[in-house]
Amino acid sequence: MLPGIGVFGTGDIVRALVPFLRAKGFRVEAVWGRTLEAAENVATELNIPFHTNKVDDVLLRKDVDLVFIICQPDLHAQIAVKALGIGKHVLCDRPAGLCQLEVLKMVHAAQYYPSLISVISHGLRFLPAFMQMKRHLEAGYVGAVNVCDVRVHCGSMIGSQFDWMCSHLMGGGILTMVGSHIIDAVSFVTGQRATRVHGMMRTFTKSTEKINGIRWIDSDDFCSFQMILDGGACVTATLNSHVAGGFVQEVVVCGSCGRLAVRGASLYGQTHTDEREQLLHDGSADDLTHLANRNDNSSARVNSLLPQPYLQGLFRLVGALKEAFATGDGEHGWLKEPVSSAATFEDGQYVQAVIDAVKLSSASRQWEQVTVASDENELNPLMTRLNLPNINMSSLDALSQAPTNRPQPAPTQRKTTATSESHLPWSFATKH
Amino acid sequence: MLPGIGVFGTGDIVRALVPFLRAKGFRVEAVWGRTLEAAENVATELNIPFHTNKVDDVLLRKDVDLVFIICQPDLHAQIAVKALGIGKHVLCDRPAGLCQLEVLKMVHAAQYYPSLISVISHGLRFLPAFMQMKRHLEAGYVGAVNVCDVRVHCGSMIGSQFDWMCSHLMGGGILTMVGSHIIDAVSFVTGQRATRVHGMMRTFTKSTEKINGIRWIDSDDFCSFQMILDGGACVTATLNSHVAGGFVQEVVVCGSCGRLAVRGASLYGQTHTDEREQLLHDGSADDLTHLANRNDNSSARVNSLLPQPYLQGLFRLVGALKEAFATGDGEHGWLKEPVSSAATFEDGQYVQAVIDAVKLSSASRQWEQVTVASDENELNPLMTRLNLPNINMSSLDALSQAPTNRPQPAPTQRKTTATSESHLPWSFATKH
Repeated sequence: MLPGIGVFGTGDIVRALVPFLRAKGFRVEAVWGRTLEAAENVATELNIPFHTNKVDDVLLRKDVDLVFIICQPDLHAQIAVKALGIGKHVLCDRPAGLCQLEVLKMVHAAQYYPSLISVISHGLRFLPAFMQMKRHLEAGYVGAVNVCDVRVHCGSMIGSQFDWMCSHLMGGGILTMVGSHIIDAVSFVTGQRATRVHGMMRTFTKSTEKINGIRWIDSDDFCSFQMILDGGACVTATLNSHVAGGFVQEVVVCGSCGRLAVRGASLYGQTHTDEREQLLHDGSADDLTHLANRNDNSSARVNSLLPQPYLQGLFRLVGALKEAFATGDGEHGWLKEPVSSAATFEDGQYVQAVIDAVKLSSASRQWEQVTVASDENELNPLMTRLNLPNINMSSLDALSQAPTNRPQPAPTQRKTTATSESHLPWSFATKH
Repeated sequence: MLPGIGVFGTGDIVRALVPFLRAKGFRVEAVWGRTLEAAENVATELNIPFHTNKVDDVLLRKDVDLVFIICQPDLHAQIAVKALGIGKHVLCDRPAGLCQLEVLKMVHAAQYYPSLISVISHGLRFLPAFMQMKRHLEAGYVGAVNVCDVRVHCGSMIGSQFDWMCSHLMGGGILTMVGSHIIDAVSFVTGQRATRVHGMMRTFTKSTEKINGIRWIDSDDFCSFQMILDGGACVTATLNSHVAGGFVQEVVVCGSCGRLAVRGASLYGQTHTDEREQLLHDGSADDLTHLANRNDNSSARVNSLLPQPYLQGLFRLVGALKEAFATGDGEHGWLKEPVSSAATFEDGQYVQAVIDAVKLSSASRQWEQVTVASDENELNPLMTRLNLPNINMSSLDALSQAPTNRPQPAPTQRKTTATSESHLPWSFATKH
């Protein structure tokens, strides 16, 4: 039997998702909102039987077995850890948390309850174009992967009111919202993970017509980052929310004997023996949104916040979840296989580690090592502090001016510090 | 009267250019080749009356008043300086030289003979799409410029034989061949210059079927670089020669109230009040190559080395040169106005300073300051040494490992060193 669902969040994604969940046969039993009013509005609109502004009131309900955490990122970790502790399956929206330390707590909770499903909403893994790209790469279509070139162009992600999307301390910004999907997708299709990153983040639009009071926008609206993968490939990604007029995403993977490119939801490829580019998968037929939208208005609203490929991917992830539960064996009530390619909390931690390192690099203006910690004590204090609300940007200023003040880790425990990184030999740059 | 022309170089660009020069009414009087055989072949093929492998034999000819330097970059500076000294006008191909020190000598020669024309072949300035982009930016079409996002995808630039394109010490590589045009075009359209840069360069293809003997390819076939412009805008550029199947170039400039994009030879734009993107200039009608190509073969060959937009731009620059001479006043024999927007040797020096800093950044893995020197003593020794043949990469290794060994410049004389750069305050990152 499909589990009852509790939803955390009242945003536009929730409004698009709930009808889709029902179309797939799930029961949506409860909704949580930051305010009782917001929860009530969504409950009324979507006809959800129970609403509340208390986290426990959803988690403790017996008819809720699976929770969707689609609220502001600063609440993800605490809700996810608590949900797993109470024995609920969890789907958590990206970014997994505010910093790697938070996500590590989620990872530990997931490891403690292995019989529960715990996945991050990196839905690009379930888009046919990316699945086929991965298969082609594994089959050697491009040979050894050299270069990944990613470009995302979209309009402003800032709404009409000040909310967490405006604040980098609360997890907003194009790096966390879009870059997280890209970081995960690159590692998914190539099977390689970033070891070193470089980033340049900017907030060009600090105020809008509606947001110009005491609070200003400080989340990044532009981010360019580079990654060196452990297999030697170079990744360069440009995330630009200053391009109004539609969402454009292109992921190009080049290798020694060809290339693959996902544009939108379609896959293209060309090997060195091909005369011209081939269409390997036509994504125009993959659209599932008709199952979710009861009217055209909701579609337009959702597109601004969650572009088509990500929404499509999320819907397909939900489809995989349904399959996992519908075909489950007797012991756990669910089957692992359908969601085996979903992003785990460990994957979410890796993505968060890269995000933290890119943010740190943008501040330190150096290449930074990506350190995926297995213990909370392993984490570089600066990386964890980057996102904490009690640190403002002027403290980072001081930190990057005086790098010798930063705690020097024991060489065996942590791989390197940001300051030593820049003195690594040239051989690194020519090795690959 | 149009001046007689002496051409330095025997490559495919020369084969495309000479017919175009004649179509414009120029007389091509002499050709120089690295070997007498190469010079003779081109002279016979193109019906050029005089050929030689001695530089002076072209420069000292009385019927040669204008020289086109389209040979390997390590010879540009010496030929250009000598030509100006003998009183000849000079058009020099990109990159202007091997390093800023060389180009500075060219600048000094050009300053010493101000009545002579001295231009670099940055022809994108003469493409209608870029000219209109500049005009629109000056008219405030996008508001304050925030982000420039540049992407160039092309096939391998390596030919069937080992030549200077395979060697970064001789000026080869995608940064010098393509990046130089991009650096110049961005500064041309925005009116801003880079103050700091970051770069990641790689050579993934070190050998080919034909080039796999004693000599290996070490010029960059992939380069991602970022620039901070003096007006506060961020530039990110990806140059990728691993994408076979045609040349793709897109230059997007985003601002506070819109954006402009040159794709190929066409200009597109969208302001925040537009519902959709507008075609502002259709570049498909700008093609001049029919004037140059006597058969289809030469067109195909040229396209691999000098893609359409660059060739188109070069042809238009030649058109401007013709106008300058044809309508010249009595005193100098030429009129400044038609070539007033061409890239001067000073512009070439700026481009070279950025290239040097990007190369240095790729080695040091830090942001590097762009220093345009007016005196040879001002130049950072490492920057000048980066390209000199007697320094190999292992020496750079030692340099980047031991930055304290690098000479510390007086603060007033040079702006900053690479090592101090990385400790500049965070305020830089948030200022813009």
